Amino acid sequence: MTGSFAFKLIKTDGAARRGEVVTPHGTVQTPAFMTVGTQGTVKGLSPEQVAATGAEIVLGNTYHLMLRPTAERIAALGGLHKFMNWPRAILTDSGGFQVMSLSSLRKLTEQGVTFRSHLDGAMFKLTPERSIEIQALLGADISMQLDECLKLPASREEIERAMQLSLRWGERSKRAFEGRAHDGYALFGIVQGGDDIALRQQSARALTDIGFNGYAIGGLAVGEPQNVMLKVVEETTPVLPSDRPRYLMGVGTPHDLLEAVKRGVDMFDCVMPTRNGRHGMAFSRFGSINLSNARHAADPRPLDEESAHPAARTYSRAYLHHLTKANEILGQVLLSTINLAYYQALMAGMRAAIEAGSFDDFRAATIAGWQQGDIAAL
Amino acid sequence: MTGSFAFKLIKTDGAARRGEVVTPHGTVQTPAFMTVGTQGTVKGLSPEQVAATGAEIVLGNTYHLMLRPTAERIAALGGLHKFMNWPRAILTDSGGFQVMSLSSLRKLTEQGVTFRSHLDGAMFKLTPERSIEIQALLGADISMQLDECLKLPASREEIERAMQLSLRWGERSKRAFEGRAHDGYALFGIVQGGDDIALRQQSARALTDIGFNGYAIGGLAVGEPQNVMLKVVEETTPVLPSDRPRYLMGVGTPHDLLEAVKRGVDMFDCVMPTRNGRHGMAFSRFGSINLSNARHAADPRPLDEESAHPAARTYSRAYLHHLTKANEILGQVLLSTINLAYYQALMAGMRAAIEAGSFDDFRAATIAGWQQGDIAAL
Repeated sequence: MTGSFAFKLIKTDGAARRGEVVTPHGTVQTPAFMTVGTQGTVKGLSPEQVAATGAEIVLGNTYHLMLRPTAERIAALGGLHKFMNWPRAILTDSGGFQVMSLSSLRKLTEQGVTFRSHLDGAMFKLTPERSIEIQALLGADISMQLDECLKLPASREEIERAMQLSLRWGERSKRAFEGRAHDGYALFGIVQGGDDIALRQQSARALTDIGFNGYAIGGLAVGEPQNVMLKVVEETTPVLPSDRPRYLMGVGTPHDLLEAVKRGVDMFDCVMPTRNGRHGMAFSRFGSINLSNARHAADPRPLDEESAHPAARTYSRAYLHHLTKANEILGQVLLSTINLAYYQALMAGMRAAIEAGSFDDFRAATIAGWQQGDIAAL
Repeated sequence: MTGSFAFKLIKTDGAARRGEVVTPHGTVQTPAFMTVGTQGTVKGLSPEQVAATGAEIVLGNTYHLMLRPTAERIAALGGLHKFMNWPRAILTDSGGFQVMSLSSLRKLTEQGVTFRSHLDGAMFKLTPERSIEIQALLGADISMQLDECLKLPASREEIERAMQLSLRWGERSKRAFEGRAHDGYALFGIVQGGDDIALRQQSARALTDIGFNGYAIGGLAVGEPQNVMLKVVEETTPVLPSDRPRYLMGVGTPHDLLEAVKRGVDMFDCVMPTRNGRHGMAFSRFGSINLSNARHAADPRPLDEESAHPAARTYSRAYLHHLTKANEILGQVLLSTINLAYYQALMAGMRAAIEAGSFDDFRAATIAGWQQGDIAAL
């Protein structure tokens, strides 16, 4: 199950890629959806339940974990895998994105970012070197460079400044990572450049020159329309080396995943399946379903009797409606589970389609299923 | 697994009893702890997870379910067992206790109780007949008579009035239950009488004359000291028929269970293992442990490495502390699970001790374990 980090490209179908990411904690089949486990837990699910959805890798958030319980505490307890009892692969982000979105009193300099904890107001500093140190303490199979992620829209000048800073932080991240000499572990660079294609391509080339184990496309899904996001992806992936995995950060809806895989992306992460699940929304073959809607109140059918996951086959929509209306924890847990299982099933479907050389057919059929809508299942 | 309701007394050790309650949905080994599943779910746990704690029966709350999603809705969906996917035994309460504690604008008459829903302010009426009807719609293996449950302290006059009313409601409940002719299902009467031993014994005798499948002791754990509760139990159980199960309602702490079994009680229910678990408290062989306490923050040990349940053996105290401090759903789920498993292990220990004729030794050793406290485990 363990091995040094590697990416194997197994098959392509158009720009879509079927591959494997080997890590010290197991192999991840790509295209892959990485389940978000922000604070050392996928919200509401035990590690066994996470694995049962089909997940092979989870994402931990450096920002949250550095504040509580701290990276040093987790290291002393044997690392994040042991802390959260997740024996498979873990990717950690650099903390930068959440410093920008969650903390107050940020101050960004060439050196790094100083911020106030949203928990207790204490001041912290995050530099490329400290971010790599934290991720090493956590024991991440895949670490991410620190970058600056802007909200869109932003001016070209501002986008270029942030992109160039992110490149310099990428270089420093790589030096720091090499200095720690974690054999077999990986570091990914992050392409920035907002919605400016030329800047994106410049960023991608410069990162490739630095040399990383994989390349993320960051700074998307931050307010721009889907077509802008997909355009950036489409123009960026051809500039990245084909023998390294590509990770589109923080994306997205099932439709986003389908379109991004079509454009050559291998890895994703998103809070949507768990966050929306906690708010009564299910993702399914029939599109998204709002379980709090009264039309489900007397519906004895399961969400999807053909699902590979028992949670989608076992519980009636009426029961899920009841749990949602009653704000019961089990409703949040079941819908999170059902959604993660659907995301994993979608990725498995894409992988099989690429292998069979029928990705476009799969894509069309999947979208048609969503467009039928839930009504079609009645 | 199914059968008509019956109670088999297997062994006694002093006043402590080892038995079996047979129901249409399986046999329950007694002394038994019944897990509370108020709104059609044990908070946070799937039915499989509930069963894995050792539970053989869960309790549903008539008050909550009659308001949402309504008993008629659950009946239309195939009954409560199917609705919540719990194939084993279910006991439902009558709704009376929670009308008193949760609703406003109650009006109690000879006929029944009129109240305002705490959810939407709608008016409802609960009579002995309607309570039995609701419990039949839910499909409860064991139904409870409607009674009036007073808070203690209360005057003797008030206690006697409520006890006599409860007896009349017991008779009406039995007539209503017989009219529905659910072969193999059971109805329990409820002894009232506050902390007045003479009234308790009068109630127990009168209920025995009416004739029920089992007898509950209600109106305790409502504010009185433990020694008063145990005195009432001790003086009531000898008056009840020995060939019927005895159920002490809403009790209690692990120590309460131990002392009540010693005094001849067979069945219990309580929200404590789940409610306290949601608030960071664990029950264990070492007594209760407050996981939010900072002394657990760096503790790599599991809660109880000798526990029969993996949740108590797998996760470190440091991790449970972290989840509790971070208010993560998984912390609530794991501590609820660990507590329910501990309660079930305690009951299993009592059953084995009664069989072996060593209940007093088991009781003393268990109490000594709690008194060592958590420190002893360090």
